[in-house]
Amino acid sequence: MSILENWGSVPEGWKHYHLLDIESLRAEEITLLLDQAERFRAVLAQGDRKIPLLTGKTCVNMFFENSTRTRTSFSLAARRLGADVVDFTAAGSSLSKGETIIDTAKNLESMGIDCVVVRHSCPGTPKLLSENLKCSVLNAGDGAHEHPTQALLDILTIRQRLGRIEGLTVAMVGDIAHSRTARSNIWGLKALGAHVIVCGPSTLVSKEWEKIGVETSYSLDSILDRVDVFNLLRIQFERQVVRPFPSVREYAHLYGMNGDRLAKTKKDVLILAPGPINRGLEVTPDVADGPQSAILDQVTNGVAVRMATLWCCLTSSRS
Amino acid sequence: MSILENWGSVPEGWKHYHLLDIESLRAEEITLLLDQAERFRAVLAQGDRKIPLLTGKTCVNMFFENSTRTRTSFSLAARRLGADVVDFTAAGSSLSKGETIIDTAKNLESMGIDCVVVRHSCPGTPKLLSENLKCSVLNAGDGAHEHPTQALLDILTIRQRLGRIEGLTVAMVGDIAHSRTARSNIWGLKALGAHVIVCGPSTLVSKEWEKIGVETSYSLDSILDRVDVFNLLRIQFERQVVRPFPSVREYAHLYGMNGDRLAKTKKDVLILAPGPINRGLEVTPDVADGPQSAILDQVTNGVAVRMATLWCCLTSSRS
Amino acid sequence: MSILENWGSVPEGWKHYHLLDIESLRAEEITLLLDQAERFRAVLAQGDRKIPLLTGKTCVNMFFENSTRTRTSFSLAARRLGADVVDFTAAGSSLSKGETIIDTAKNLESMGIDCVVVRHSCPGTPKLLSENLKCSVLNAGDGAHEHPTQALLDILTIRQRLGRIEGLTVAMVGDIAHSRTARSNIWGLKALGAHVIVCGPSTLVSKEWEKIGVETSYSLDSILDRVDVFNLLRIQFERQVVRPFPSVREYAHLYGMNGDRLAKTKKDVLILAPGPINRGLEVTPDVADGPQSAILDQVTNGVAVRMATLWCCLTSSRS
Repeated sequence: MSILENWGSVPEGWKHYHLLDIESLRAEEITLLLDQAERFRAVLAQGDRKIPLLTGKTCVNMFFENSTRTRTSFSLAARRLGADVVDFTAAGSSLSKGETIIDTAKNLESMGIDCVVVRHSCPGTPKLLSENLKCSVLNAGDGAHEHPTQALLDILTIRQRLGRIEGLTVAMVGDIAHSRTARSNIWGLKALGAHVIVCGPSTLVSKEWEKIGVETSYSLDSILDRVDVFNLLRIQFERQVVRPFPSVREYAHLYGMNGDRLAKTKKDVLILAPGPINRGLEVTPDVADGPQSAILDQVTNGVAVRMATLWCCLTSSRS
Repeated sequence: MSILENWGSVPEGWKHYHLLDIESLRAEEITLLLDQAERFRAVLAQGDRKIPLLTGKTCVNMFFENSTRTRTSFSLAARRLGADVVDFTAAGSSLSKGETIIDTAKNLESMGIDCVVVRHSCPGTPKLLSENLKCSVLNAGDGAHEHPTQALLDILTIRQRLGRIEGLTVAMVGDIAHSRTARSNIWGLKALGAHVIVCGPSTLVSKEWEKIGVETSYSLDSILDRVDVFNLLRIQFERQVVRPFPSVREYAHLYGMNGDRLAKTKKDVLILAPGPINRGLEVTPDVADGPQSAILDQVTNGVAVRMATLWCCLTSSRS
Repeated sequence: MSILENWGSVPEGWKHYHLLDIESLRAEEITLLLDQAERFRAVLAQGDRKIPLLTGKTCVNMFFENSTRTRTSFSLAARRLGADVVDFTAAGSSLSKGETIIDTAKNLESMGIDCVVVRHSCPGTPKLLSENLKCSVLNAGDGAHEHPTQALLDILTIRQRLGRIEGLTVAMVGDIAHSRTARSNIWGLKALGAHVIVCGPSTLVSKEWEKIGVETSYSLDSILDRVDVFNLLRIQFERQVVRPFPSVREYAHLYGMNGDRLAKTKKDVLILAPGPINRGLEVTPDVADGPQSAILDQVTNGVAVRMATLWCCLTSSRS
């Protein structure tokens, strides 16, 4: 197969066996993953959906939280690389018989698994598994900690549409406090030289972020004209114990992106949303479906980013 | 692979990118699908289960209602054509986070999906998706509207066993009011020249059908001797708000097919049931498992019909 | 592919089309499966995970009880042999519409299935299916009756670590009364010439076993120094109507394997547990993770044993 013959091996700059977070990656490593993802995206765009670089490998999805897009995206990424995919579901599992998560994972690994893709409500679960398994561990979201492949696909989408990351001003809008996507984006964007603003109700935006050079804002209207990219986070009702603002309507009024606000932004502004979106809440339909929106590009890039991550991590030797 | 080399391309008469219903198909289009299904069935019968005409394509099953046979049948059909299959489950999904079904489907499509197979309790859901997606949409059952592949497999089974459709008298027996299978069969059988009788309790059989040339009957016993095919519908308790007849026992007494009734039918009568069957209710075990029954042939034909549908729709250019 | 060219065919001694139990297998048949499993394990250990001896075959997992390891192990085994795998889930199925299990299985079979792997709480379900289906049926656990592939992987692990079965003393410890694993192991170990002790509370260990030459014991401490292999069964709370001992703590005190007890065993004693393990109950973490433990080897051998079983049964002609 000619694609494979010319594909080459994983670039020397990549040494990681796991992908647990963005925080610990250097800028060159992030760029390396983005570059590889771009190669995969280009091939996929030509309609060629099989690039069997991981034939004979097996990935297991261990998802302990609801997920459509991330689980499916990882599954498709693995299969397009020729790997087998096993879905582990917490419901019908031995965890309900009292087994620890480490034992469950070690059992799966002993069946000849090369990679565990894990999502869990408890921050640090991927790290815990990586310390106890011999196979690769990829973080698909751990509590409010990180969601590294989401940040990579967001950043790839920005780079694709605006041509660069360095020097851009990117606003993460909304529920910063509960958002692993925000955290991963902040680390990645900062590493690549962007200016990051976190914007939302004071109950959801901590001044602590300023300590690492992130700007904080409680007023979306006050930053509209100097932002290159708005990344509109979903209000994660399922993670909030106390409602952090008086009403959904007030939130949409103060922090929702709509046509009026869009008119006050830069001409080539980019609208991202990690999804699933609540139409009319964090973003109105006209904006979500308009020309500045790259929401579906993000999804397409998600598969490419996960292919790059799987290929780089599973091909790298364990240190 | 020699099978593939000689397979040829989709016949010119087929122009559809979606399969949303039978009502809008012309007789020649139905016959075309049946003819192609017969080719697939013949190859499968030889024990060769891989005919990789759709390698590199990806299908997603979006099933919002219970299903064993239809979902599995579509999955096997896709895989035997070499396609990848992703199962979307409503439970662990972003729909529970408030996303619209169109957004969910567009997200899946953006991951590089070529075909959505959808089952939903709401009539028109497949059409809604087809108007909002670029990929093919196949209706696997929408409320009480249509279930086109079920009708195709029923009709293929009749043609296989009796050699023709034109001129036959086919009785759909039972819960016509709630049956998408009945509706799809009626359109298909009428198009191909059969005489159709809908037979059941008056609460489940509308006189409206007569307007399009369908005969109605409230007495199974009165039609036994002039029917070539009985298609025994399942009583769909899960769709009925008010029980439409006094008791299950009375239903079985009046409309159940049993040995006594079978003895009064034509010598080469054919018994179909879309299943799952309630043994002793719409059909007794001796009839369901007897020589006139083609119930399991229907299931085998189901895979062939779905292979034909997938191949024809996914290979046809979008108009 | 060179592996396949030299693989050869299923040894002549194997005549079975189903694997329903261990009780009815002859010693040579058990040894034949173990020998074939060893060949698969050796190839898998070299990192080559695809041995496509069953390309074009389709297996369906019909699991009516919770399972992580067994279902996943069978799935991986089938896929590594090149077969397609369909997961049947009782929840979203036609069984909830009133269909019998035989009808459901016959329907799946009619779609072109070569093998049903079944787990059910009712003893005899695999046998029932084998009498009603044309395809192979493999028992993945039926009530408290048998779990043949679990016994095969346990016995393979013993043979691998201790070099033989004949003449060894193997103690099954714990919940013998509810354990299909215990029953399958007893038949297999006896057939191959081991001495078997069943050890546990008198409420869980029947004297009836002595009639077929199994030793019974109510005291783990009294047998520590003369046992070669301890197989520590899980307390299956989900199968017990009345708690058969005063407290979990008392059970751990009397029958849990811990460091103190291990110090009194033979030097090269082997610790097995079918899992999932309750750490601190039937086995303490130091023992479970220690050098005498072969718990994860069992899991690895499980895939190899299931590959051997699938290959032998699906390649054998129906008698």
